[in-house]
Amino acid sequence: MKIAVLPGDGIGPEIIAQARRVLDVLRQDGLPLEMEEAPLGGAGYDAFGQPYPEFTQKLCRAADAVLLGAVGGPQYDNLDRPLRPERGLLAIRKDLNLFANLRPAILYPELANASTLKPEVVSGLDIMIVRELTGDIYFGQPRGIAVNELGEREAYNTMRYSESEIRRIAHVAFGIAMKRNKKLCSVDKANVLETTEFWKEIFIDVAREYPEVGLSHMYVDNAAMQLVRNPKQFDVMVTGNIFGDILSDEASMLTGSIGMLPSASLDQNNKGLYEPSHGSAPDIAGKNLANPLATILSAAMMLRYTFGQEEAALRVESAVKTVLKQGYRTADIFEAGCEKVSCSGMGDAVVAAL
Amino acid sequence: MKIAVLPGDGIGPEIIAQARRVLDVLRQDGLPLEMEEAPLGGAGYDAFGQPYPEFTQKLCRAADAVLLGAVGGPQYDNLDRPLRPERGLLAIRKDLNLFANLRPAILYPELANASTLKPEVVSGLDIMIVRELTGDIYFGQPRGIAVNELGEREAYNTMRYSESEIRRIAHVAFGIAMKRNKKLCSVDKANVLETTEFWKEIFIDVAREYPEVGLSHMYVDNAAMQLVRNPKQFDVMVTGNIFGDILSDEASMLTGSIGMLPSASLDQNNKGLYEPSHGSAPDIAGKNLANPLATILSAAMMLRYTFGQEEAALRVESAVKTVLKQGYRTADIFEAGCEKVSCSGMGDAVVAAL
Ligand SMILES: CC(C)[C@H](C(=O)O)[C@@H](O)C(=O)O
Ligand SMILES: CC(C)[C@H](C(=O)O)[C@@H](O)C(=O)O
Repeated sequence: MKIAVLPGDGIGPEIIAQARRVLDVLRQDGLPLEMEEAPLGGAGYDAFGQPYPEFTQKLCRAADAVLLGAVGGPQYDNLDRPLRPERGLLAIRKDLNLFANLRPAILYPELANASTLKPEVVSGLDIMIVRELTGDIYFGQPRGIAVNELGEREAYNTMRYSESEIRRIAHVAFGIAMKRNKKLCSVDKANVLETTEFWKEIFIDVAREYPEVGLSHMYVDNAAMQLVRNPKQFDVMVTGNIFGDILSDEASMLTGSIGMLPSASLDQNNKGLYEPSHGSAPDIAGKNLANPLATILSAAMMLRYTFGQEEAALRVESAVKTVLKQGYRTADIFEAGCEKVSCSGMGDAVVAAL
Repeated sequence: MKIAVLPGDGIGPEIIAQARRVLDVLRQDGLPLEMEEAPLGGAGYDAFGQPYPEFTQKLCRAADAVLLGAVGGPQYDNLDRPLRPERGLLAIRKDLNLFANLRPAILYPELANASTLKPEVVSGLDIMIVRELTGDIYFGQPRGIAVNELGEREAYNTMRYSESEIRRIAHVAFGIAMKRNKKLCSVDKANVLETTEFWKEIFIDVAREYPEVGLSHMYVDNAAMQLVRNPKQFDVMVTGNIFGDILSDEASMLTGSIGMLPSASLDQNNKGLYEPSHGSAPDIAGKNLANPLATILSAAMMLRYTFGQEEAALRVESAVKTVLKQGYRTADIFEAGCEKVSCSGMGDAVVAAL
């Protein structure tokens, strides 16, 4: 079980260090985990002049799974576009063919107050967002900034999906729906965009292979509203890369504790990259203040999806639930009556609970 | 002051009827308003076989302003794409060059409970969203569904903005910011999409003509989160057509009472189309249950933006505030202790308050 560990930038190294401690416990208990580190994003640029250096690429290609902290920071903002940290993230997604991004939005009962929504609207919230990650307007050609026939500058990007790209993400989404409540909502803008009209058509076709799953369709503008109005109507939601970028962030913020939310990005064979849903938080980097739980829960997702170690995954997840019940809170989720701990303090608590 | 009145589909005719009564009062009091009706959307298809019939086009081109109810309904869902009701809406926007869509998201204190967000998060909410309405991936060419070089079907759309399209919406947005709190947030995805990188560059350039306005930039995924986390950080938000479609719906749902929210779509000379932010609500059409206030407030926006009749606009807006204070509520905003009224009953109350 070879894991490429990419701490990245900002709080990345701190939160990754705590996730490694958790994985070390499992290793001591017999899981054959091998971990090796490499730089990505700004760290890749600093070490090798590239956000996704060849050194990192080799390690990640050879690994079974990748565990990532986060990338980005203000010191890299003025680099040329191809050198910026987020380019490293886009490059590794494309290079490893990680087309299926799974982002759960779960409200932990202990953290219900952290939400800006009323408790009755979000209590028990448990949505899985499936976002296509290697197609759409993120990668579509042609793209650029140029002077047009009228002599005026204009810029353009191409939203594009092929039938096979849509089919494979549809199968992932239906598969996940089968393991949950057999309810799948596909989000599109089929009333305006041919690309998503085509998306909808393919989903309707694939649905015939999953007769037990109830498939519904929703326009993206309505989905953005319904997530605010009544998020618990959703179980599994699936959409393209750009709509998924927007809706998955909106959904995770409904919980009020994005510091708790993991994510997985999978290829066809369940090789995956696992990372917290939050960013690199440069403002608190190096201060031992960050919440490592999303990264620890990302490691649990890795155990489940890539290594098929359901038991080990549940062990980590229940350790996280235990520390929440025990009242340990990092600053981002702190409330009166709880015990405030540092990033490493939270790691201590999870290791103890394991 | 020539107004083309387009009742449209679903609840459209009912809510438009109440807005007309309000305008009739102003006419009797001396405003030289002339109103004529024409069909749009499904009604256009029923009458003339087209969602934006020539008859309607002629009337709207000759008018100074257009007041629209809403379009769409299940009976039109299986029509060919070019015949569907929403095509009528897209066609009239493009035909009249209505590139600036203004969508306020305002929380009325009397309706604070209707929001799914906690009162402290949304009380006093007053955001103006400026959405570019005639460019972007909505209208960009090429677009379609075709077989590619590999013999596989694929679909594509083009996001596209020219410099002049961005400049003119920037001037509208800065102009509105100048009349409000001089804070403008431009939403993009400049880290991924060249089109929005270009958008950002032009906004930074136009900003030099408005030194008093504080311009900030935010990624669209973050904006979708921040609207949930802390919506009151925003005053005026400006973005392209597709991001604006998503974010303006999300923002209006924060108030919990989309039945209250008007919108304006303006051309270069303040000719405009005015319509409620909500849809045609086929489920309650013809039952005299709909909330006409968003349409009445749209008429107020028309008085302000197209006709420069600030006083008349304020008169209508304060009549709406009065009926809310008096406790009149249509079903969508009803709560215990208030008086439930029908669509026409609400019209009665507003006319009385005028
Ligand atoms: C950093 C950025 C390129 C990235 C994306 O847009 O995919 C991020 O927002 C995400 O969701 O992982
Ligand atoms: C009906 C549809 C074409 C339209 C749009 O996407 O612009 C609607 O959602 C809106 O926001 O007015």
